[in-house]
Amino acid sequence: MVGVVAVSREQYNPWERRATLGPRQVRQLVEEGVKVIVQPSKRRGYTVKEYQEAGATIQEDMSEASIITSIKDMSIESLIPNKTYTFFSHTIKAQPHSMPLLDAILEKNIRLVDYEKLTSGPGIWPASAMSRFAGIVGVLNILHGIGLRLMAFGFNTPFAHIAMAHNYVSYEAACQAVRDVGRRIAEGEMCVGPLTFVFTGAGGVSRGAQEMFKHLPHEFVTPDKLPEVAQHGEKTKLYATIVDIADDLSRISDGGFDEKEYNQHPELYQSNFAKKVAPYASCIVNGVYWQPGQPRLLTDADAKTLLAHDPNAPQDLTDIGEDPILPRQLLAICDISADEDGSIQWTKYCTTADEPFCIYNQDGQIIKSGMTADGVLMCSVDNMPAQFPKDATDYFGELYLPYLKELLKTDANSTFEEYQKAVCPALENAVIATNGKLAPKYQYIADLRAKSTSQNQ
Amino acid sequence: MVGVVAVSREQYNPWERRATLGPRQVRQLVEEGVKVIVQPSKRRGYTVKEYQEAGATIQEDMSEASIITSIKDMSIESLIPNKTYTFFSHTIKAQPHSMPLLDAILEKNIRLVDYEKLTSGPGIWPASAMSRFAGIVGVLNILHGIGLRLMAFGFNTPFAHIAMAHNYVSYEAACQAVRDVGRRIAEGEMCVGPLTFVFTGAGGVSRGAQEMFKHLPHEFVTPDKLPEVAQHGEKTKLYATIVDIADDLSRISDGGFDEKEYNQHPELYQSNFAKKVAPYASCIVNGVYWQPGQPRLLTDADAKTLLAHDPNAPQDLTDIGEDPILPRQLLAICDISADEDGSIQWTKYCTTADEPFCIYNQDGQIIKSGMTADGVLMCSVDNMPAQFPKDATDYFGELYLPYLKELLKTDANSTFEEYQKAVCPALENAVIATNGKLAPKYQYIADLRAKSTSQNQ
Repeated sequence: MVGVVAVSREQYNPWERRATLGPRQVRQLVEEGVKVIVQPSKRRGYTVKEYQEAGATIQEDMSEASIITSIKDMSIESLIPNKTYTFFSHTIKAQPHSMPLLDAILEKNIRLVDYEKLTSGPGIWPASAMSRFAGIVGVLNILHGIGLRLMAFGFNTPFAHIAMAHNYVSYEAACQAVRDVGRRIAEGEMCVGPLTFVFTGAGGVSRGAQEMFKHLPHEFVTPDKLPEVAQHGEKTKLYATIVDIADDLSRISDGGFDEKEYNQHPELYQSNFAKKVAPYASCIVNGVYWQPGQPRLLTDADAKTLLAHDPNAPQDLTDIGEDPILPRQLLAICDISADEDGSIQWTKYCTTADEPFCIYNQDGQIIKSGMTADGVLMCSVDNMPAQFPKDATDYFGELYLPYLKELLKTDANSTFEEYQKAVCPALENAVIATNGKLAPKYQYIADLRAKSTSQNQ
Repeated sequence: MVGVVAVSREQYNPWERRATLGPRQVRQLVEEGVKVIVQPSKRRGYTVKEYQEAGATIQEDMSEASIITSIKDMSIESLIPNKTYTFFSHTIKAQPHSMPLLDAILEKNIRLVDYEKLTSGPGIWPASAMSRFAGIVGVLNILHGIGLRLMAFGFNTPFAHIAMAHNYVSYEAACQAVRDVGRRIAEGEMCVGPLTFVFTGAGGVSRGAQEMFKHLPHEFVTPDKLPEVAQHGEKTKLYATIVDIADDLSRISDGGFDEKEYNQHPELYQSNFAKKVAPYASCIVNGVYWQPGQPRLLTDADAKTLLAHDPNAPQDLTDIGEDPILPRQLLAICDISADEDGSIQWTKYCTTADEPFCIYNQDGQIIKSGMTADGVLMCSVDNMPAQFPKDATDYFGELYLPYLKELLKTDANSTFEEYQKAVCPALENAVIATNGKLAPKYQYIADLRAKSTSQNQ
């Protein structure tokens, strides 16, 4: 195999420490004859030395490569014309903030492959590797936050001993810490509860979150059993339920559900989440896929009732007497989907690893600092897998490698037809733009943009 | 032995999880015939059940006790007249915010014993148990902060794997984590540096801080060697120096130092810290004892030079290229002494476990949130030992127990002379107020208050 691939330095934010390939995948490519350029970075989980030892060429200049890879999107200024770029582009919903980037990609004759759409056919897809780690990290982060939050409310719980995900040396070390906390819950150390966890969505995020959660003593129940266990359950375990769209949505006219109809006419449907599930949840871990126009799980209006302060609890949360009382059932939301103003409308912005939490209250205010304000704790870090940079890189790199090898068969100057012939259907599906145009499957992005422009006029 | 002692619920802030006695000391007292009342609390490190099993009487009402103990000060409303109270009262410098409490104590005929002054004679004193843990926890917190801060500056370092102190199950678990980080530093994983640590003070805080720091590979040097190692040292270890007042202060007129004169006339002396030490420090861990009128280690004016931004480093700290550059030598200060506007004037307020950090910049501004702003990272949590509640309680309780037994010999209605006869010199020394008056040794507090009032007029 011949060709030159580059692993770019990530530009997204200071906490982005992942890479598209780990040293193991680099070694494999190099042994097969591919030159792998790795841009130097002291921020990455894997060090330059580790890449060097794997045979990578460490250099700033990536112009020799035909494929330039990164996890998150690249800046417009850094784009080199006539290359294939692969990253999560956040363009397929015509997201306004990504449109200048998309225009530059078209203008510079770049072939853009988006991991998000590398999904047709069977198997585990690279994007879902990241979803899995987003779920895993999300659960760690929110348990960490709940530990401090419960302490603010007067409860010292085993959760106080869960650190932020990035503080663990590895995925395995985090699992051990969570299992240890689980043992103490099982032994009766949880002085508050019963606590209930709701996982929304049925994709990689939700599965990853459940995977980490299951290290704690738990019982999964159906959503309709949640009110019962929230009131009369035991404190030696945690309760959980999974809510997918089919469980939650109903046709406004008659209560039915038809997924095909829903996908075409989401406006005919409503979510029952705020009324039937959220009132009995201590913690919501949100992993749904959501698009504008689809019903939201929680709207701003829902905050009035769901976040109402228990009149029996002290108004000043830090004024704790003999027997503290939680101000409400709902303690925390980890919005891993992290769509701003999205499926959970309370998520007004994405948080970061250095300031992962904020508090949203019944008046719709956001309190950005501290753990003692009234409201619900929110965590919506949008690049959570970066908190486990080595594990996330390894897992992603392993899944991505076969596609990368296929991509090497053509370059951005080949026609779309040549590309189609050379690659598998998944890679065909994942090309958003090529040869200066949107790929046929993604021409709807132009329509969405046109519509949005006319609406804004 | 007879008598009734109470362990009060702490009222200081939501993060205060210590107690004056652990279950082990409670058991000892109960076995010797003392009744121990423990006010219920779900926040304490030790659970109500653990105290119950040790023989404590769990009840809200403490009126039966002749001695009511707590770590931090009690609210005025909760004070029961004619009792002996023992806590850190923050009154002996006539601190304005504690004067209403002191007045209430005098008015209610309360005998106040302050651990801070339980210090005459040989041995380890209860207060120093807390100083030790303040030092230990302080180092953990600031290493955690430095991990994130260096990440913001483009450096992924082993410190990223140090959690906030309260996230560790125990002191021993924290030591293990730090040793593991130390191994990785020794193996060459530190991509920035050489980093230098300055420990100020020679008391329990400084010793506790050094105790935890020494789990990392290190070399202690004299302060005059700091410039050399800061520039040409190795990255496989950390450098440290200890600066006590005798090293730092000099008579303004001739550069000499006489401790006795200094204590009487601090205004004749100046600190050389900002010029000779701070410019070569990556991290300052402050554990000095300081009183108003004494020279400060760092003044607001020093920020202009010490926090000046390296012109070679990017102005936008998150805009990191191939080879990131630290904006200045000084990365972080852990002000464990935590005197607001005190020995480190940059400490404008005490931080809390849920929001332990802020950033202070060269213009004297405080940035309360996030890790990406320009300036120096500050941590000044004032009840750090509460982050290791069980360890700190055990250690303190063990040292305090013999004094508590002596205190049981008299009650607050006995005269000071009777008390003096019954107890050891240390306990005599530690009585701030009794029988409605300041104890003879502490009548200066009234003078300080009078002086401060006249100055403010």
